[in-house]
This record gives sequence, structure tokens and C-alpha cells, in this order.
Amino acid sequence: MKKIRWGMIGGGKGAFIGGAHRIAAKIANSYELLGGVFDVDYERAKEFAEEEEIDPRRVYPDIDKFIEGELGMPTNERIQAVTIVTPNFLHYEHAKKLLLNGFHVICEKPVTLTSAEAIELQKIVIEQNRVFVLTHTYTGYPMIREMRRRIEAGTIGELQRVEAQYLQGWINPIIHGEEGKLAVWRLDPKVAGISSCMGDIGVHAFNLIEYTTGLTVKQVLAVLNRLKPDNPLDLDGNVLLKFDKSLTGVIRSSQIATGEENNLQISVYGSKGGFHWEQENPNELKMFHEGAPFEVIKPGYGYLTPFAQESFVLPPGHPEGIYEAFGNLYKGAAKAIRYEQTVPGQFPGIEDGVRGMKFIEAAVASDQAGNVWMKITG
Amino acid sequence: MKKIRWGMIGGGKGAFIGGAHRIAAKIANSYELLGGVFDVDYERAKEFAEEEEIDPRRVYPDIDKFIEGELGMPTNERIQAVTIVTPNFLHYEHAKKLLLNGFHVICEKPVTLTSAEAIELQKIVIEQNRVFVLTHTYTGYPMIREMRRRIEAGTIGELQRVEAQYLQGWINPIIHGEEGKLAVWRLDPKVAGISSCMGDIGVHAFNLIEYTTGLTVKQVLAVLNRLKPDNPLDLDGNVLLKFDKSLTGVIRSSQIATGEENNLQISVYGSKGGFHWEQENPNELKMFHEGAPFEVIKPGYGYLTPFAQESFVLPPGHPEGIYEAFGNLYKGAAKAIRYEQTVPGQFPGIEDGVRGMKFIEAAVASDQAGNVWMKITG
Amino acid sequence: MKKIRWGMIGGGKGAFIGGAHRIAAKIANSYELLGGVFDVDYERAKEFAEEEEIDPRRVYPDIDKFIEGELGMPTNERIQAVTIVTPNFLHYEHAKKLLLNGFHVICEKPVTLTSAEAIELQKIVIEQNRVFVLTHTYTGYPMIREMRRRIEAGTIGELQRVEAQYLQGWINPIIHGEEGKLAVWRLDPKVAGISSCMGDIGVHAFNLIEYTTGLTVKQVLAVLNRLKPDNPLDLDGNVLLKFDKSLTGVIRSSQIATGEENNLQISVYGSKGGFHWEQENPNELKMFHEGAPFEVIKPGYGYLTPFAQESFVLPPGHPEGIYEAFGNLYKGAAKAIRYEQTVPGQFPGIEDGVRGMKFIEAAVASDQAGNVWMKITG
Amino acid sequence: MKKIRWGMIGGGKGAFIGGAHRIAAKIANSYELLGGVFDVDYERAKEFAEEEEIDPRRVYPDIDKFIEGELGMPTNERIQAVTIVTPNFLHYEHAKKLLLNGFHVICEKPVTLTSAEAIELQKIVIEQNRVFVLTHTYTGYPMIREMRRRIEAGTIGELQRVEAQYLQGWINPIIHGEEGKLAVWRLDPKVAGISSCMGDIGVHAFNLIEYTTGLTVKQVLAVLNRLKPDNPLDLDGNVLLKFDKSLTGVIRSSQIATGEENNLQISVYGSKGGFHWEQENPNELKMFHEGAPFEVIKPGYGYLTPFAQESFVLPPGHPEGIYEAFGNLYKGAAKAIRYEQTVPGQFPGIEDGVRGMKFIEAAVASDQAGNVWMKITG
Repeated sequence: MKKIRWGMIGGGKGAFIGGAHRIAAKIANSYELLGGVFDVDYERAKEFAEEEEIDPRRVYPDIDKFIEGELGMPTNERIQAVTIVTPNFLHYEHAKKLLLNGFHVICEKPVTLTSAEAIELQKIVIEQNRVFVLTHTYTGYPMIREMRRRIEAGTIGELQRVEAQYLQGWINPIIHGEEGKLAVWRLDPKVAGISSCMGDIGVHAFNLIEYTTGLTVKQVLAVLNRLKPDNPLDLDGNVLLKFDKSLTGVIRSSQIATGEENNLQISVYGSKGGFHWEQENPNELKMFHEGAPFEVIKPGYGYLTPFAQESFVLPPGHPEGIYEAFGNLYKGAAKAIRYEQTVPGQFPGIEDGVRGMKFIEAAVASDQAGNVWMKITG
Repeated sequence: MKKIRWGMIGGGKGAFIGGAHRIAAKIANSYELLGGVFDVDYERAKEFAEEEEIDPRRVYPDIDKFIEGELGMPTNERIQAVTIVTPNFLHYEHAKKLLLNGFHVICEKPVTLTSAEAIELQKIVIEQNRVFVLTHTYTGYPMIREMRRRIEAGTIGELQRVEAQYLQGWINPIIHGEEGKLAVWRLDPKVAGISSCMGDIGVHAFNLIEYTTGLTVKQVLAVLNRLKPDNPLDLDGNVLLKFDKSLTGVIRSSQIATGEENNLQISVYGSKGGFHWEQENPNELKMFHEGAPFEVIKPGYGYLTPFAQESFVLPPGHPEGIYEAFGNLYKGAAKAIRYEQTVPGQFPGIEDGVRGMKFIEAAVASDQAGNVWMKITG
Repeated sequence: MKKIRWGMIGGGKGAFIGGAHRIAAKIANSYELLGGVFDVDYERAKEFAEEEEIDPRRVYPDIDKFIEGELGMPTNERIQAVTIVTPNFLHYEHAKKLLLNGFHVICEKPVTLTSAEAIELQKIVIEQNRVFVLTHTYTGYPMIREMRRRIEAGTIGELQRVEAQYLQGWINPIIHGEEGKLAVWRLDPKVAGISSCMGDIGVHAFNLIEYTTGLTVKQVLAVLNRLKPDNPLDLDGNVLLKFDKSLTGVIRSSQIATGEENNLQISVYGSKGGFHWEQENPNELKMFHEGAPFEVIKPGYGYLTPFAQESFVLPPGHPEGIYEAFGNLYKGAAKAIRYEQTVPGQFPGIEDGVRGMKFIEAAVASDQAGNVWMKITG
Repeated sequence: MKKIRWGMIGGGKGAFIGGAHRIAAKIANSYELLGGVFDVDYERAKEFAEEEEIDPRRVYPDIDKFIEGELGMPTNERIQAVTIVTPNFLHYEHAKKLLLNGFHVICEKPVTLTSAEAIELQKIVIEQNRVFVLTHTYTGYPMIREMRRRIEAGTIGELQRVEAQYLQGWINPIIHGEEGKLAVWRLDPKVAGISSCMGDIGVHAFNLIEYTTGLTVKQVLAVLNRLKPDNPLDLDGNVLLKFDKSLTGVIRSSQIATGEENNLQISVYGSKGGFHWEQENPNELKMFHEGAPFEVIKPGYGYLTPFAQESFVLPPGHPEGIYEAFGNLYKGAAKAIRYEQTVPGQFPGIEDGVRGMKFIEAAVASDQAGNVWMKITG
């Protein structure tokens, strides 16, 4: 099958996240990287292209040149899909231009800096009928997909309790370091948006809750912690959730949980059973039953739902990791691009971006208003 | 050394919790059970006494007779300490009578049904100069004690994040069972007090947070869930915490987390490191460090603080469990009774009872007032 | 019910293992400690008795006096059962005298120093029709008992592979310490017998294999390691096992696995499934199934076999530990003593002692003969 | 940097292991797949090439045509390195032809069917001065590499005990299935060689022991189990190891440990500490210390040795899996090919292949000779 002609904005030499996208695309085995705007420094961009054996004529100095150049190519040679891995504050502008010119877009999180921008992108995605992928990578793990399908099928009954945590500690040495360290871009609202902890990781927990349970969070009540008065952004917080149903929900998140690495966990309990999953040990899904031993579900087995089965290639006991989860999103995107048909759950889309931005805004607003309930509409 | 002359109110034949107290007292190796009011059914009480080879003359039909009978004995034969394992709504009355008549008291949780009652008991405890033990058993685990000492010593720096969970699922089949099942005493406010989940287990999480961190919770904001409209009491909830310091705190608790057994966990993070402990695997304490491997601290070693060392008898790798934790409270009580001197942390006291009742009341009030902050004074 | 009148030989003041026996007996709630030979130092023995409030007239200076004194008592006051916690080389003599004089015996492991002595004791036990308990404590864990019953019931089919490990590290600092340290009694053949590692802990692994599988080891082939040429006893080794069936078996054991505490594990696989259990986390039993998720079986549930149910008192999620396992042996012994009827599996008996001694002798002989198969008969 | 011109023998459409090699090569980001003999069915080979967008002129019907075709290309276009993923019995012939014609070779395990063949290949590798990679994938895990470096540096002192297990259950349903199932190629000696369990997985455990400890196994004593008399090959076994030093070693391996997936574990203990690692949770390495808490070492940290650091790309807490371990071997091979310099440990080579074949032969011979010690020379 022909590979999808693929480009990147950002993500060149030395960009960790760009490399991750390329590995994910390779694992998906459906993309060929043909060009892009790999770096703000054009010379570095060309060096990168040479290393990757990319035609230098398709290395562009900026996004406008990229669009001009590619639109000048015959349609059957033109880049079809573009991955955006630029700094957060540029996502909106880049995605908008690409979508309006007919490119499919794979965009790093957060989709934009505001929900208004995200809503605008959503309209464009629909009007242009383009594929838009937001890389909430954790939805690509096979055990998360199994959990989604089993909850959908009612295996744990009516939901009664939902919670997720996302604990990291990496900002701890920064916030306690010398003064200058506060200048890290993640703590600069102009670049990072209105939230650090909720915007960067809390939103993953939020997305995972809506992804696995199929529920919609209606209101949030947040307490956020900036730790130091001169730090403009939250580093830590707890967010209570309201749904339509009679259940409690909570998201706990931190970037100053010293010693924690990337400790994303989700627990969902219903009237018949429950699930517990931990990202740092992603190939195990605990399933609780009323009055029976708990089971540990693992990938690679015939007993899994088809969605989980197709999300794991190796035999049982061969650990796949986050690259493979990421690759699953790229695989889903490839199907959607090739067959012009999107199966729900195969990848997070612009609607997840809109939801996420609304969550972040509501959480920050709730905290600023003195920890009151804030609605998330739509 | 002479055993402490010991009695019980409640806890006779077939009473699971009474048996646990007796095993704890035996492990402490400092108590001799001489008499009590073992059962509301006097015949059953006498049968129990016979089985336990207790002098039938010291089996009393009610607490007044108990007090009368024991006060009639010479002081060097009289029962010194009494354990109360009657239904919750009787704790206050029984404790009050015993204290006023000079007995030391070991009381099951909750100490009373209201904070007002607890405060009254506190005054009496002080006036009478008696030992009062509230059996927050989890404070007896050696690894919890090690955590307390290490936080006290500043090993993880300034605290930044505190959280605890207590998840159970045992009420799930009851709440979904036939109508009559709602009549379980734990869901009857007259017997159980104003809260089920927070009153029974959330308060343990609260106690553990104050015990290990040395912090005082100043305010709470709670969302509680009764699951069904005709159920008067909370079965599940999340409670946000405010302290004096700039840190976030949260307690999550449930009796309808289907499949969970007795999943009490606590995590505390500071500027230099963190701790994580799980009750169902109580002999491991994870200690996180900034930029270094995490350690797993286990009991039985010379590297532990003296408090943790004296709270574990066996060599490393020989699992002690909840009976031994319970026994540690009885050991602490025995020292306090014998030497008339109480070392802080050896057992939870009436002040923990007061704090706990205030927590429960504040959590319920916060929920009823629409999830607003409620102060916990004193 | 009347408590069993109980005595001890050894185990007085400061004897860790004596204390463990007393706690086990207390947990069993069926024994009253009335007298014994608590110490070689008679003064210390009397001090101990005073602390424990034992009648000083029943504190004896040696075993002969003990027997004489107790036989002089009316039968309904005489001590019925005696626990032996003297040094290894005295077990045989003490057990023999007690049995021949009509006492039931609870004996620390190893039962004797040779299989010949054990066989002699076995004859006496049968002739005298006395209860004899050998404290292979690990057989008292509820999950081990569940495993035994399930294998018996064929839930994992025909057995195909059996293995156990018992890894400790505590001799490491001794063997590498100053010369004098080699003088530790465990490394003195006169006191400890012909083997250190296999005799002290390998034999537990052996016992656990025969206990849980119901199989009989027919031959062993051992490689033992003394680490240093001047050390007379093995500190480490691997022992291959032959059964009647076509399956492989192996025991791995060490006292110089530096950093290991008391890491006893057993794994058994059959044609339909398998089991895995770890002593340091004793309340979890993994059950493997062909083509289905593995289950984690835990104590306290109605789904367990009656044997496991009666071996655990608390509700699920309340960790019981090794004292409670030990207590289960004492409970089994109490039933056997009271009802003169022994249910297989309730406690290890003299036959386990004989098997264990034969195992130790065969392992040492195999090693000395150059790692050849040695038969274990009977 | 120019990609290495790469080819494959075998591994086309539907070949799981071929796909794994391609992903590994992509993760290594240093290889371009230009041609090969992808399938015995030439039409399928061409279909595969079309899907992968490989020039059809470089799709060859057999290895001789491959060599002829590539040697006919200019040296700067000619394929440099070839991966062999044909059935086991063809490895020798294919590797030999490729090496003799100047290609670097990456070969699936087992390298050959006999040690004689492996030794012959070794000579050729040396004479031709080619890179030869044997894909013992587990040596690519960062925590295994950390363990190797730390043992090398003496962090756990003199080694005292070494053991590894490799337990799987996948042959269980085959061996118990209908008669025809025995015809699975893995149980056919002509295709699989003289051993199933030791040849397929036991040898990985052997390799991991020599890789991490730097020790050389001198003798083995094996007990193997074929389970059924009509099955020609071992499915399970235990192999005792002798080294120069005074330590014990054992390899346990099974393909009929029902329910086990890919449970490879290694434990090494020395005079100062120990290590324990499990393949199914590969990002944790337990390090034991004498008299101190054990540590859990994880990838992504600055405290690791450079070798482990360069073997893991992502930040801590982002699980990498077996593909990334595999990719690390391809990265090592790329360095060796480009710079004509091989750093020990970067990938297993032909010498590991020779050692492995000798191990397999010695284990089978030991078993057949009645479980006696067999030497492994060289």
C-alpha cells in the first residue's frame, strides 16, 4: 500500500517529541516523511533533512512557504498529512492554515491556548472534512482500549466512582532552583497558556476519563497550587467532577510530586465491578469483580475485544510501550485518511481538543473564583 | 511484670471486633481479661466467660453493675482498663461513665456520634487524668511510624502535596440488594451517626494524614454520594483539604468501589522527596528521592528509627499484619497506664477523636451546603 | 472451653522464637501456659515466670524435673502439651522423653539431627498415640491451604512443573566478617546438624512442595556451596527433584543471597493452569489459566475452600501475617488434642519431620558424592 | 547521515518476526530496506515489496540470486547488511553465503543447528571482518545494560549466586491437543534442532547470565522433560551451572508452565548486594544492599551509567518495551558497520552464538547421559 505523504512543522534536530512522532509513524508503517518546516533555524532544518535523506527542495523556511510549495506540487505527490510539534502558542495558527489548505493535521497537545480557538478549529475541520488527530497518546494503549470497550458493554454495570491521577515531580527542582529557573517556558503564560499542571497533564487525566467511560464531565471544582506567589501558573491541584449520573469523580495532578515520574492512573468502579490501570505498567489491567478474585488482563490474547487485539502486535509477555501506543494513533489516522472514514476511539480528535481546553479553563476559573463549581458546556 | 487488669464492654461471643481486641491485647502481652459486660444477652455473656475461663462473678449484666462491682473490689484487684466495643451510639455514654469512675478506656472508633460529645469526653479525660485510646489501628503499623518520624525529621523537606484514599466495596451488594438491606445498621443514622463512608473510613484517612505529617487540616470541602435517594448516608466521597501551608490535600473514600477490599493508601510529597504506603501491603514503604532511585523501606532493620524498630518484633521478611499493628496500640497504652506517661504517637487519643468528629461534621456540612469550605477549629 | 494446659521447654526471656510460639498459642485461644523449663539459667527462668504470672512451683530446672513434677499432679491439672524450643541438637532427646511420658509435643524445626532419630520418634508417636506438631509454619498460611485444596481437586490438571525457592541473605555479613564470626552456632555441625542452608530453610521449601502438591519426592540431586573452604556447612544450593510423574522439580535456597530477607516462593504448573505464591506477600495467590487472565485469590472470601476460610479470621483486605499462620498450626493441634482426631493438613507432623531429615541427608549426600541422584525412601 | 543499505532474507508478509526487525531498524533510524528474499513464494515476496515501496528489481527469488544481483550493483548502492529471519535450519547456510560475499549479517536465534556450524561461521566472521549480530534481544534493555555495568564495576562485590528463569506456557495446549499438533515445527528436530525449550528460550537465560555477569559457564548438569514419550524434544528443564568461582548457578526454563507468558527473570547476588530483573516489567531493576533498603533503578535518569542512558530515549516514566530493546541492538550494529568498530556489549555476536549452541548441546548431552556434568569449552 502506498505510504501517506507526510510532513512536519517543528520537530527537527534535537527535538525529543519530534523524534517520538517519527518513531510512531514508522511503527504505524504507513507514512513517508517527505518535507516540512523542521526548525526555526533554516540551516538546522536542512541539516536535519540531509540526515533523514529528505529532498532538500521540500525543506521550507516557514509554514507559508510550506503551503505554497506543496500546493504547487501535483496532487498525487503533494504532502497529505502534517504533524504539528511547534510550541503550544503556535498550534492554533499552524493548524488553521494547514486545514484551510486541505492538509490533514496531527497536532501535539494542547490543541490551542483557548477554547475559543479550539472551537474555531473544530468548525474548520468539519467544513474542510479533514482528519485531525490530537495526540492524547495514552488512548493508544491496548489495555485502555479494552477498558473502554468493556465499560461500553456494561461489564461493570452502572458507574459509581471515577478517578484519575497524573503525578509527576519534574518541576520540583526547577521551582526550588535559582530565580532564573522560573523562566522555563512551561511557566510562561504567553507560551504555555493559562495553566501548567492542568494544561499539560491534568487534561490527559480528564481525556482518559471521558475516553474510557464514555461519560461527559458537566462541572468542575478545582483547587490549584502555584507553590510560590511569584509563579503565575499552577503546578499541582485537585479537581472534583460532576456528571449527569450520581457518581463522584476527581482528578489529582501534580508536577511537584517529588520523585514521581509519569504516574498516570485511572480507576473506575460500577455496580458490578471495577477497573484499575497504571501507565507505568501499561500492559496490566486489573478488573475487579463482586465477590470473586480480581483478574489481571494482559494484551496479546484471543479473549480480548477486537479493538484491544488489533492494538497490540506481539505475543503475550512481550512488553510494548508508549511508542507503540503512539503508533496506534498514527495507525488509526492512516485508516481515516485512506478510507475517509473514522472509527470512534481510534484517535482523539478536535472534539477532544475542545473538551480539553474547556476543562482547563473551567478548572482555572473555578480556582480563581474561590473553588466553586464551573460548568463545562458542549 | 504484673499484667494490667482488663475488662471489656461488648465484644463477646461471635463479635469479630471483640476477638481482634483480645488478640491485640495478647500480642501486647500486658493485659489479663478479668471481667466485663460481654453481651447484652447476659446468658451469652456468661457462656463466653466460661469459654474464656473468666470468673463468673465478674461477668456483669450492664455497665452500671460493672462499675459498682469493680469499685467494690480492692484497688489492687480492681480492673484498671476497659475496652469499649459496643455499637457506636453507646460509646459516649460508656466512656463517660468509665472515665468518671477512674477507669482507663480503650475505645473503638468512632469515639462518639458528635464532636460535642467528644469534646466533653476530652475534658473528662484531662480532669480524671486517665489514659484514653482510640483505636485508629493503622497508626500502629511500623512503616507508618517510620514515615511519621522521617517527615518530622525533615527528610522530605517542606510538604507540597498530601493525599490519602480509603476504598472499600462491601456496601455495594447491600445497596443494590433487596429493599430490606438498606436497614443495615451502618446506614441507620440513629446508630451510625451522620455519616457512613466518611464516618467509618474517611476518618481513618484523615487521622493518618494528621498522624504522619504532623499537619492540622484547617478546612474541608466535600462532595459526598449516597447513590440512592432513599439512602440517608454517604457511601462515597472526595474531600479537599486546606492547611496553613501552601499545599493541596485530598481524601478519597468509598464503600461502593466494587471489588476493593480495604485499600487505604497515603502519599506525601515534599520539596526533597516523598512517601507512599499501602495498607494491604503494609510492610513496604516507598521513599522517593529527587533524582535518585526510589527506596523500599521494610521493617526489622537496624537502619530504621527506634520507634519503627520497637513496633516490629520479627526479623525482616516475616510479615506482621494488622493484629500486630493493633497490638502496638495496646503496648503503647500499657506503657502509659503503667508509667503514667504518654509518649506522643504511641496511640491515638481523645484529641484524635475530637479531630475526627469535627472532620466528619465539617465534611457532611460542606456537602449539604453545596460543596463549600467548612472550617475545622481546634 | 477449657484451655489446653501447656508447657514449654526453652523459649524464655529474650528468646525470639519462644515469644512467637506464645503469641501463636494466644491467637489460637486454646492454650494456657502453666509451666516449663524456660531457661538453662534457672534464675532467669523464674524471672520469666514471674513476668508471665506463672506459678513458680511449675518452673523446673530441667526436663527430668519437669516430667517428674507434672506426673505428680492430678491428671486434670497436669500439663497436656509441651512446646520444644531448645537448640536443635536437644530436640530429639526432649521430644522422646516427653512423648514417652504421655505429653503431646509441639516441636521446632528441625525435628532431630538425623533421620534415624526422626524415625525413632515417629515410632514413639504412633505407639503413644500422641499429637506431634512440627512447626513448618508456612503451611498455616490460608493461601497455601487454598492452593493445596485446589491442586487436590484437580483444578490445574496433571502437574508438569514444580519449584520452590527460599532465599535469605543474613549469613552474608557473618561469613565475610571477622574470623570469629564463623563460630555462629548455625555453622557448627555439632549443634546445627549436617546442613545449614538446606537444613534450616531448604527443608521448608521441600515441605511446602510436598504439602501443596501431595506429591512425594523420590530422588534429589544437589549442588551445595559452602563459599569458604573452612566453613563446614552449606550456605547455598540448588536441588533437583525427581517424582514418580514426568515432571521437573527444583529447590533453590540460599543464606547468602545478599539483601534477600525471607523470600520463600512456590510455583506449580499443571496441564490446565498454575499457581504462584510468595511468602513476603502471603495474602495473594496467583492462579494461572490456559488462555484466560490470571486471577489473584485473596483470603476472607466465601469463594474459598472451607479450609482456607477457616484459616483466616478477618474480612478481606486486613493483612494477617506469619503469627496468624503459626496460630493456625496451634489451632489444628488444639483440635487434635481435644478431639483425639487429626485432619490431614491441619499441621505438619512427625512424618514431615522424617521426610525433611531424609531430604537434608539425601541432599548433602548427593553433593558429597559429586552431584548424583540420591533416593529418598519412605 | 546516510542510512545503511539493508536487506532481508525471509520476514515478508505475515511474518511476525520480520515485522519486529523492521520496527527495530526504524527505531534505530539508521537503515533503509532496499531489497531481499522476502518469501519462499516469489509472488508474495513481490506483493510485500510493493506494499513497502521497495524497488521490485531488488526482490530476489532466492539467496543466490540476491547475492548475484547485489554484487552486480555499484558498491555505494549495494546492500551492506542483511537480516536473516528464515527457519532455524537455514540460518547457517544463509549466513555463510552472505558473510563470504561481504555482507554484514543480523541473524535470528538460534544462530545454527550445531555448535560446529556456529564455530565455522565464527571463523568466517573473523576472516571476512564483518559485523555479525545475533538477536538476543533482551541484552538491549537499558536495565540489563545497567546491571552489566554495575556488576563489572564491582558494586555488588564478588558473585555468590546466579540464576535465571525463562518460563512460558504456550506449548501446553499444543502438547495436549490432538495428535497432529505435535507436528508443530518447533517440535520437529529437523527444523528446530536438538532442543525445543533449551534451544529456544533456555539459551536466552544462559546468554543473559553470561552477558550481565561477565562470567563463563564451564559445566552444566541438566534434567530435561519431554512430557510425552512420543515427543522428541524437551519442553521444560532445569540446568545447574558451574563456574570457575565458588558460586552456584541454575537456569530454569519451560514451555509448559501453563499461564506463563514470557517470564524471563535474572537474579545475581554478590558479597555486597544483589540484582533482580524481570522481563515483563523491564523498566525496573531491583538493587539489593546489605543492611539498607533495596532500591528500584529506572531508566531515563542522569544517575545511570552512560551505557544505560544511551539505551533509553524517553524521560523517566514513559515505558519503552521490547521493540526499543531490539532497536538498541540495531543501533549498536549501525555504529559497528559505520565506524568499523565494535564496543563490547552493544550487541550479541557470533561468539554468543557459539556459546549458546555449546550450552544447548551440553544440556541435551547431560540429560541423555543421566544428568551428569558436561563441559562447555571455549
